[in-house]
Amino acid sequence: MLLRQRSWIKLIKVSSLRIHYDHRILSGIQPTGSIHLGNYFGAIKQWVDLQQPQLLSPLIESEKQKNDESIKYEPIYLPPIFQIVDLHSLTMSNNPDKLRENVLEITALLIGCGIDPNRCLLFKQSSVPYHGYLCWILTTLTTLPQLHRFPQFKEKSANFKDPPTGLFLYPVLQTADILLYKGTHIPVGDDQLAHINLTKHISAKFNNTFKRKVFPIPLELVSKSGAGRIKNLRAPERKMSKSDADTKSRIELTDNSDEIVRKIRKAVTDMKSEVTYDPENRPGVSNLVQIYSLISDMTVEQVCRHFDGKSTFEFKIELGDRLAEYLRPIRMRIIDHKNNRDYLEAVLKDGSSKAIEIAEKTIDEVKLAVGLNFSS
Amino acid sequence: MLLRQRSWIKLIKVSSLRIHYDHRILSGIQPTGSIHLGNYFGAIKQWVDLQQPQLLSPLIESEKQKNDESIKYEPIYLPPIFQIVDLHSLTMSNNPDKLRENVLEITALLIGCGIDPNRCLLFKQSSVPYHGYLCWILTTLTTLPQLHRFPQFKEKSANFKDPPTGLFLYPVLQTADILLYKGTHIPVGDDQLAHINLTKHISAKFNNTFKRKVFPIPLELVSKSGAGRIKNLRAPERKMSKSDADTKSRIELTDNSDEIVRKIRKAVTDMKSEVTYDPENRPGVSNLVQIYSLISDMTVEQVCRHFDGKSTFEFKIELGDRLAEYLRPIRMRIIDHKNNRDYLEAVLKDGSSKAIEIAEKTIDEVKLAVGLNFSS
Repeated sequence: MLLRQRSWIKLIKVSSLRIHYDHRILSGIQPTGSIHLGNYFGAIKQWVDLQQPQLLSPLIESEKQKNDESIKYEPIYLPPIFQIVDLHSLTMSNNPDKLRENVLEITALLIGCGIDPNRCLLFKQSSVPYHGYLCWILTTLTTLPQLHRFPQFKEKSANFKDPPTGLFLYPVLQTADILLYKGTHIPVGDDQLAHINLTKHISAKFNNTFKRKVFPIPLELVSKSGAGRIKNLRAPERKMSKSDADTKSRIELTDNSDEIVRKIRKAVTDMKSEVTYDPENRPGVSNLVQIYSLISDMTVEQVCRHFDGKSTFEFKIELGDRLAEYLRPIRMRIIDHKNNRDYLEAVLKDGSSKAIEIAEKTIDEVKLAVGLNFSS
Repeated sequence: MLLRQRSWIKLIKVSSLRIHYDHRILSGIQPTGSIHLGNYFGAIKQWVDLQQPQLLSPLIESEKQKNDESIKYEPIYLPPIFQIVDLHSLTMSNNPDKLRENVLEITALLIGCGIDPNRCLLFKQSSVPYHGYLCWILTTLTTLPQLHRFPQFKEKSANFKDPPTGLFLYPVLQTADILLYKGTHIPVGDDQLAHINLTKHISAKFNNTFKRKVFPIPLELVSKSGAGRIKNLRAPERKMSKSDADTKSRIELTDNSDEIVRKIRKAVTDMKSEVTYDPENRPGVSNLVQIYSLISDMTVEQVCRHFDGKSTFEFKIELGDRLAEYLRPIRMRIIDHKNNRDYLEAVLKDGSSKAIEIAEKTIDEVKLAVGLNFSS
């Protein structure tokens, strides 16, 4: 398991010496219309693995039982929730047709990667009426200075003369995305730690302000390995990124085998010929070793031993072939699903009706806590 | 009619030389739990009158027909919408029980004043899921500097060490409250002109950005008379206000006749004894003349003539009696309704189901425009 847990969640149901707690993995992705290898190993692959949340439990048990051996903690595993956050996309561009297309595209990509609509809830954020509703309520529990502090806001606002208010509110909507479904375990990248901390803060503040335990304090699940840090093939000191103008800088999941082989062969390395793992001094070749490690289940050391005595050229040839092999079935599934628009729409529709049911329950509790209903 | 129109709305349906346009009066009130004479004459009384929106039409016709005599403009009068904006209340305080109570209280007050649930839609904002939804979308079309400019934000934030983000977003939610129901005519006080201008701006920006005429450009209806400017009885240089600690400074609609007579008798005037209307130099007595004018349908000049040769003391006695008489039936109805909680809840429920129907239609159009649905 690639994951590490940073803090501890609220326990919510106690019966004698067994403590039951809901365990809901939750994450989201913007409908950007493509997924590259960095996204795949940094996030999507984890999502696929997390569809068996039981795999996390030994870790959880051991941490908890440190405190009291006599208590048995029993998680209730709820289906993971993966959202396509189209309302967030509106902060960066206004292109209705592109957005519609990208949502279907990302759905095909996710299912192609192994997200299984029968084992999780996959839906569009905008299909559930309540994200904005809860977001509004949570804005009354945050302050302007809190939101001004976010580095992402400063970064992204550089793209605008006058940044839209929505960009500034982004972390509050993200908090609503999590709390609306009472997410307890949130797979995030390192750059999302400030966001998850805001979510914890708001969750606690809500519960304290209204003197009801409506929301759990969610836990971040942060990748331990370098999986989230696949580098740019043409400039390996930077992360692989979809915004790089040079398409040779990244491998898309929809690239065909020829393209993959060619891109790996042209990947920037250095003047030395041997295969070693030294990200500091040899970022190019180390990045390729990392990729090889991820698709082979070998450690980076094992990869280097495997190519002992061989040149980086020979290594690139083998990596290219192997990566093409690894991605082929994923690509075939993606292409299949892309051609089946009805199926994709049906998956999203089914996911959203399940999501609405959960969201409505939470909103009822929120209304009761805040004073927006009469049945107190 | 007390109203004046400042600009002109979009015309939406053309059939030969008859142009039909939807005409929807819309306004909102925070559930503050009480209404004083200033609120009543400044807003509620107008709402009651506006339940016959036909009364506005001669004015509208004459303005329109200036341009082309051959075209006939035919408004389609839709029931006015009056919202109890409980989501807005959350920006100022967190007291669930008080909020629940205040919502029922304001409902009783409004109905007691003459708001007729059979002739308008009266409902709680929070019962409709889509105010926050639309608010989020509109935040992507506003900028931070636009919102920082609002004088109300500066004013209200003075009550907080760190003002909540919700207070900052207030004008965007207000815009959503209007556009969700395609309000075309918005009764507002002078202090709300900046808000309605933001609404016009956002409405036009949405339509232009997404190249669809989803929203009308709403018109403000501003009170012509001094009705909105009833003064504080103890400090007539200020407006009558619910936040004044001295309850003798205002007349609540629920005050009994004795209290009304006593408060008017103790109203601060000046050393002169005659009854004149001179708000600049004699604010106290002029305020009382204004009140007399409003409850008698006499002009302020007629009131002064009526009391020619009489002292302010005699004037106060007659005004107190007459005002008590004027407010008695309203107060009796309010008390009646307050005791009928089931009726109040039923009115709000019925109003909200009608409101949800309208809101859902608008949101469908918004989704189509923005790219959040598939049926393009």
